[in-house]
Amino acid sequence: MLWTKIKLLVLDFDGVLTDNKVYVDENGIETVCCSRADGLGIEMVQNSDIDVLVLSKEKNKVVQTRCEKLNIRLIQGLNNKLIVLKKEIAKRKLSKREVCYVGNDINDLECMKFVGLSCAVKDAHPEVLKAANFVTEKNGGNGAVREICELMESMIRKDL
Amino acid sequence: MLWTKIKLLVLDFDGVLTDNKVYVDENGIETVCCSRADGLGIEMVQNSDIDVLVLSKEKNKVVQTRCEKLNIRLIQGLNNKLIVLKKEIAKRKLSKREVCYVGNDINDLECMKFVGLSCAVKDAHPEVLKAANFVTEKNGGNGAVREICELMESMIRKDL
Amino acid sequence: MLWTKIKLLVLDFDGVLTDNKVYVDENGIETVCCSRADGLGIEMVQNSDIDVLVLSKEKNKVVQTRCEKLNIRLIQGLNNKLIVLKKEIAKRKLSKREVCYVGNDINDLECMKFVGLSCAVKDAHPEVLKAANFVTEKNGGNGAVREICELMESMIRKDL
Amino acid sequence: MLWTKIKLLVLDFDGVLTDNKVYVDENGIETVCCSRADGLGIEMVQNSDIDVLVLSKEKNKVVQTRCEKLNIRLIQGLNNKLIVLKKEIAKRKLSKREVCYVGNDINDLECMKFVGLSCAVKDAHPEVLKAANFVTEKNGGNGAVREICELMESMIRKDL
Repeated sequence: MLWTKIKLLVLDFDGVLTDNKVYVDENGIETVCCSRADGLGIEMVQNSDIDVLVLSKEKNKVVQTRCEKLNIRLIQGLNNKLIVLKKEIAKRKLSKREVCYVGNDINDLECMKFVGLSCAVKDAHPEVLKAANFVTEKNGGNGAVREICELMESMIRKDL
Repeated sequence: MLWTKIKLLVLDFDGVLTDNKVYVDENGIETVCCSRADGLGIEMVQNSDIDVLVLSKEKNKVVQTRCEKLNIRLIQGLNNKLIVLKKEIAKRKLSKREVCYVGNDINDLECMKFVGLSCAVKDAHPEVLKAANFVTEKNGGNGAVREICELMESMIRKDL
Repeated sequence: MLWTKIKLLVLDFDGVLTDNKVYVDENGIETVCCSRADGLGIEMVQNSDIDVLVLSKEKNKVVQTRCEKLNIRLIQGLNNKLIVLKKEIAKRKLSKREVCYVGNDINDLECMKFVGLSCAVKDAHPEVLKAANFVTEKNGGNGAVREICELMESMIRKDL
Repeated sequence: MLWTKIKLLVLDFDGVLTDNKVYVDENGIETVCCSRADGLGIEMVQNSDIDVLVLSKEKNKVVQTRCEKLNIRLIQGLNNKLIVLKKEIAKRKLSKREVCYVGNDINDLECMKFVGLSCAVKDAHPEVLKAANFVTEKNGGNGAVREICELMESMIRKDL
C-alpha cells in the first residue's frame, strides 16, 4: 500500500493548511486561519521521520510565520511548483512514489499528477477532486491535514 | 449567448468579494474576509482581456487595499452607483450588453437592471436574487466570483 | 399590529449585532464580527424616524466603535439593563408598547418581558427564545437585525 | 449523581474555549475566537463556588489574556497535563471524583481517564469522544462550556 512508503509530505498552503480565506485589514495586513489539529498531526508524522514541506504560490510573510511555528520547510512565491518539487525530491534521493502531495486548486494539478500519492481536501476545486487518489473528509484548514497525518501513522503502525 | 460578449466585469465589494461581514477591533480598524479562489478567478479573466472594476458604497481603506492586491480598478464612496457605471461604460465605448454586474444587496438593483448580464451571489437579498439573470451556487466571499469567472472562461473557450 | 407602533428599537450588542464571538489577540485586543446587511437595515429605520439604541453589558471600546460608525446611541457597562431601559423610555415620553427589544441571552430577559415587542435572534438561549414575541430566521450577526428592520419598514408602509 | 459533587472544573483551552482555530497575521501575532456565552457560563459556576482552571499545552500570551479576562487560573506550556492536574487536585484537598475535565484532543485523554467526570466537546477527536462520560451538543468555542456550566448549575439546584 502506497501510504506506508511515503517519506515526504508536500502541502500547498492556502486552502490546505487554511480554509482558503484571507483576512485583510485597512493597513493591508493579511491574516489567515489555521487549525490547531493540523499542527498536532504534523508533529506526529515528523516524529515518524516523514519530512514535511510547504510549496506556496503566494509570497507572504504570513505563510512563513505559520511554517516556522510548525517547524516546516517552506518554499514560496512559486509560479511553477512542479520544477521545485522535482528538485526537492531529487535532493532527498527519493522516488516520486515516496511522495504525497496535498492540494486544493488547479495550480496544484501538475504536482498531484506527478507524485505517487495525491490528496485533495474535501472542498477542493472539482478538477482537483477528480485528479486525486484520495479525498479527505474534512475541509482545508479544518483538520484535512490532520486526517492525512493520522492515516499515514495508522498505516505505518499496521505495517510494522 | 450573453456570457461570451462580456468585456467588462463589475463587482460590488461587500457581500460579493467578501461574506458581507466586517470585523471591527477596539481601535476601530476594520478587517474583511476574502477568498483566495476569487483572486485566481479574477487573474484568469484579466488574462482573457476582460476588464474588472469594483464599485463600492463604503469608502474604506480595506477595500482599496484588497483591490490593489488583485490589480482591480476601484471606485468607492458611491451613493449612486448607476451614474458612475454609465460613465465607466461610456469611457470604454462599450454597449451595456457587454457588461456583467455582480451584486448582493438592494443598492445594487439599479446597476443590475441596467446591464446586459446581472448576477447575484447565492446569499444575496431576496429582491436581488429575483432581479438577477444568474445566481451563483456559492456564497459571496466563498468563491462566487471564481464561479462567474470560470463560467465566462468556459463560454469564451467554447465560442472560439 | 404592534410592529407599526414602534418608535424605539433597542438592541443588545453581543449575539445580536455580532455572532456572540469575540476574537482575542496576544495583546488582549478584542475584535467582533458584524454584518454589513445590519448596517443598511439600521440606516433604513432611522430614516423612518425610529430611534435606535444599544444596551450592552460589556464595557468595551469595540462596542463603542461599531455604534459610532452606525450612528447609534450606546449605553454600556450595564449590570441591570432594565433600569436604564425604563429611564430611556421615560426620557423619550414613550409608552413601553412603543418599544421593541432584541436580545439573545438570559441577561436580556427582564427587558424583553417589559417592552411591547420582544424579539430573539434565531440562535438565542432557549429561555430567550421562549420569552420572545418574535424569533428571527437569521442568526445574530448574520442579518437578524436587518430582518427586523425590514419587517418594521414593510409594516409601516402597509399601514400608510 | 456525579455532576452535583464537582468542586473543580478543568478546561483545555484550544478546541474547548475556542473552535480550535488560530488566526495568524503577517507579524506572527496569534488571535483566537471565543464565545461570549461561555464567559457567562463560567461566571455562573464561579458564583456557585466551583473553581475553574485552564490547563493548556500551548504557551501563548493569547491564552493568558483570555483567562485573565474570565478570572480563571491558567497553567500553560504543559507537555504532561496529568502531573499538573494531580498536583492541583491535591493542593485543593479534593478527591478526583470531585473534578470535571473538558477536552477535545488526544493530549487530553490521560486527564479525562483520571477524573471523576470527563466531558468532550461535540467536535472532539473520535478517541476523545469515546473516552468521555459526557459529550456536549455544541462545538468547542461555540457554547460547549456554557452547556456544561448550565448542566452543573441545574443539577446543583435540583440537589438542594
